[in-house]
Amino acid sequence: MTFRVHVRVMPRAGLLDPQGQAVEHALGSLGFAGTQQVRIGRAIELELDAATADDAAGRARQMCDRLLANPVTEDYELEVEAR
Amino acid sequence: MTFRVHVRVMPRAGLLDPQGQAVEHALGSLGFAGTQQVRIGRAIELELDAATADDAAGRARQMCDRLLANPVTEDYELEVEAR
Repeated sequence: MTFRVHVRVMPRAGLLDPQGQAVEHALGSLGFAGTQQVRIGRAIELELDAATADDAAGRARQMCDRLLANPVTEDYELEVEAR
Repeated sequence: MTFRVHVRVMPRAGLLDPQGQAVEHALGSLGFAGTQQVRIGRAIELELDAATADDAAGRARQMCDRLLANPVTEDYELEVEAR
């Protein structure tokens, strides 16, 4: 069965996020007042074959640990949906 | 009221995504067989003050149209949650 996995990799809370700060500043300059806590990470989508959704989530978690996320500076979240 | 907005900005379907292709190839080299359709975009989180969730979503959509996403090459999705 094929599953579609959405991964969100974000800079860990408390770590500086210069890209997010730059965007927050730019939004203020464009007139979007009251925007705070802007943080920018990566959104990754992929499809994989697995027997169950749990199996797909487990493999996707391995991919994050080994390649997709930096375990020192980033956190990730997964969503798995059947296709 | 403060709302937290999660934005996912992805390369439009059909457009080449070299970063996604590189990751797909790297996953294969690491032994994750059967991974396909890897696409890489940006995950953006921000907080904003608004009267209602619909109002927050509308403003976040304006931010995407004006700054956060490239309307020619990217699509975006929003999720709004109350804090």
